[in-house]
Amino acid sequence: MTHSLDLTAGVVTLTRALIDLPSESGREAELADAVEAALRALPHLTVGRVGNSVVARTGLGRPERALIAGHLDTVPAAGNLPSRLADGSVHGLGACDMKGGVAVALRLAAGILEPVRDVTYVFYECEEVEGDRNGLARIGAERPALLADAGLAILMEPSDAGVEAGCQGTLTADIVVEGARAHTARAWQGVNAAHKAARVLQRLDDHTPERVVIDGLEYREGLSAVAVRAGVAGNVVPDECVVTVNCRFAPSRSVEEAEAYVRGLFPEYEVRVTEVVPGAPPHLDRIGGLARALGAEPRAKLGWTDVARFAALGVPALNYGPGDPSLAHTAGEHVPVEHLERCESRLRAWLS
Amino acid sequence: MTHSLDLTAGVVTLTRALIDLPSESGREAELADAVEAALRALPHLTVGRVGNSVVARTGLGRPERALIAGHLDTVPAAGNLPSRLADGSVHGLGACDMKGGVAVALRLAAGILEPVRDVTYVFYECEEVEGDRNGLARIGAERPALLADAGLAILMEPSDAGVEAGCQGTLTADIVVEGARAHTARAWQGVNAAHKAARVLQRLDDHTPERVVIDGLEYREGLSAVAVRAGVAGNVVPDECVVTVNCRFAPSRSVEEAEAYVRGLFPEYEVRVTEVVPGAPPHLDRIGGLARALGAEPRAKLGWTDVARFAALGVPALNYGPGDPSLAHTAGEHVPVEHLERCESRLRAWLS
Repeated sequence: MTHSLDLTAGVVTLTRALIDLPSESGREAELADAVEAALRALPHLTVGRVGNSVVARTGLGRPERALIAGHLDTVPAAGNLPSRLADGSVHGLGACDMKGGVAVALRLAAGILEPVRDVTYVFYECEEVEGDRNGLARIGAERPALLADAGLAILMEPSDAGVEAGCQGTLTADIVVEGARAHTARAWQGVNAAHKAARVLQRLDDHTPERVVIDGLEYREGLSAVAVRAGVAGNVVPDECVVTVNCRFAPSRSVEEAEAYVRGLFPEYEVRVTEVVPGAPPHLDRIGGLARALGAEPRAKLGWTDVARFAALGVPALNYGPGDPSLAHTAGEHVPVEHLERCESRLRAWLS
Repeated sequence: MTHSLDLTAGVVTLTRALIDLPSESGREAELADAVEAALRALPHLTVGRVGNSVVARTGLGRPERALIAGHLDTVPAAGNLPSRLADGSVHGLGACDMKGGVAVALRLAAGILEPVRDVTYVFYECEEVEGDRNGLARIGAERPALLADAGLAILMEPSDAGVEAGCQGTLTADIVVEGARAHTARAWQGVNAAHKAARVLQRLDDHTPERVVIDGLEYREGLSAVAVRAGVAGNVVPDECVVTVNCRFAPSRSVEEAEAYVRGLFPEYEVRVTEVVPGAPPHLDRIGGLARALGAEPRAKLGWTDVARFAALGVPALNYGPGDPSLAHTAGEHVPVEHLERCESRLRAWLS
C-alpha cells in the first residue's frame, strides 16, 4: 500500500509526515512510492523514476531551468522517532538531514504551477552511503538528460538556511611506514615501524593547511590522520604502521593536484591513495544572482556534498537548506520552523 | 587406548615418537596418558598426575633434589607433521620447542635408577597459552609440595644446548593520548590524538634501554610499541590514540619498579598497565656449579620463561635444552641430533 502524502499541508506538518515514514538508506521504497504518487497527481509535472529516486519536471518552455534536489534517505534511527515539535523546531530522524529540505521542495513542486523558470525536482536515494549507490549518480549515469539541461542546481543540504557555495574535495590515503619484525625480548634486532611513524604524525601535527580564497570565499583545507594501525602480537616489534590521512582540499585543486600535494608531503614513504573525489568551485558568477535573491551572503561549503556531482555534470550548484549542518547524523537532530518557512518563502519568491 | 612409549629407545627415536603424538595446547591428554603409563611402569619412580601434567619423583633420601621440567604441549601444527630426520636434525612440530627436551628428560627418568641426587621430573601442559592454564602453575597451586623441595630446577627450554640463566620480566601497558573529535572538514575545531601521539612514539624511538649486568650476565632491556590504535571514522578527527608498549625488564627490577619506570617515562599521559610478570635472577651462586658440570658458560635469558615460576617458588632455575630458540613456533622448527645427545649425556653425567 502506498502511503498518502498531502503536499498541500503546511511545511511543518509535511516535514513531520516525511520523518514518520522512515527511509534509512537502502529502504527508501515506501517513501519513494509516496513521493512519486503525490507528484504524479499533479498535472503540471512530468514524473520519472530511477530506482527509488523520483524526478519531476515542469515543461513550460522557459529560457532557464533550475534544479532543486534533496535526498530521501537518512542514517539509521537513534531512538529519535517519531517526530515531535518542541521549542520551535521539528525533531526526529532526518529532520535536519534532510527531510525538512525535502518538505520545502515538495511544497514548491506542488504549489507553483507556473514558475518563471522551469524546474526539475529530484528526490533521490542512498546519499548517506557509498558513492556507487548514490541515487543522483545513478540518474546521471542512466538518464543524464533528466539533469543536464538545468542551468543551476540547489541542493537542499542543511546550511542554516544560508547559501553555502561549492564544496571541498576529499582524498584518503594510507601512508605506509615499514620496519622489521623482531621478538620484543630482542627488540634491537628489528626496526619498530610504530616508533618510526612518529615522524609522519609529527609532520601532520606541524603541517599548516592552506586557506584558499576563491571568488572571495575561503576554503580552509585540512589534513588529518583519521586512523593509525600497527600491531602483530604482544611480543613482536611491528614491521608496519599504516597512517590513514584524510585531506580536505579546496576546489581550486584538481584530484591530480591534491594527490601530488599529499604525496609531496611524504616523499620518503609509500602513499596509497584509496579514494579521491573532486570538490566543486563556488561558481559565484553563475549562482551569485540566486544567492542574492535568497537574501543570503554565500559562504564556502567545507564538507563534501553532491554539489560536486552537479559540478561534474557541468551544472553549477549551491547548498541551501534548513537546519544546522553540525546536527546532521546526531540523535538530537532538529530543524527550526523558522528555517523551513524562510527557505520555502525565499525559493517561492525566486520561482514566482 | 593409551599409546605406548618406549623410553629405552634412542633419543632420536623417542623425540620422533613424541612429535608423532600431537599435543597442541589443551589437547595433551593422549600424550600425558602415554607418559604417565611409561613412567608408572618404572618401580624407582613415584608418579602423580595433576590435570594433564605428570610428576615422577625418585625417593632415595639424597641430601639434594633437582627438578627437570619440560612442557608437553606445542603451538598448532603448521604442515610440519609427521616427524622426519634430515640433515642431522629431527624436524617437525615441537621438535625444538620442546619435545626434544622432553625426550631427553624421559630418557634420564627411565635410565638412571639411582641418581646421586634425587630428581623430580615434571612433564606439564599448556605452557604455550595463557598463564592461568599453565600446568606448572597449576601444580604449584594444587600440590606445591611436589615442586618446592627441589634445590634447583632445569627447564628444558631450547637454549642451543647451552645454559641460559634467569629471565627478563615483561610488562604491557597502554599509553592513552587524548584529543577532541571534529569533522575532518573542520579539523581545526578538534585536537587530533593521533597527531599528538607522535610525541609518545618519538620518545620510544629516542629511548635507550638499559643494559643491566647481574652476576656478570647482561640483561639487555627493551621498550617497544607493539600496537597503535586510533580511528573513529574516515571523516572524523580521532579523539583517542592508544599506544601499547611491551617492556622487557631485567630481573633486578621488581614488578613495582618496572611499572614505576614505564610510568616515569610518560608522566603526562594516562598509563594503563595491563600485564606485568616478574623476571627471574640468574642465581649463579646456586646454579653455577650445575652450569660448570654441563660444560656451558651461562648466558642471560632474554625471553620470559617458566624459570620465573620456579623463582617465585623459591627454586633457582636455569634454561638448558636442545634446539635453537629462534626456531620455536616456526613451521621449520627442528632440533640437531647433536644437541639431543649432548644434553642427555651431560645431564646423565651430572646425575650419575
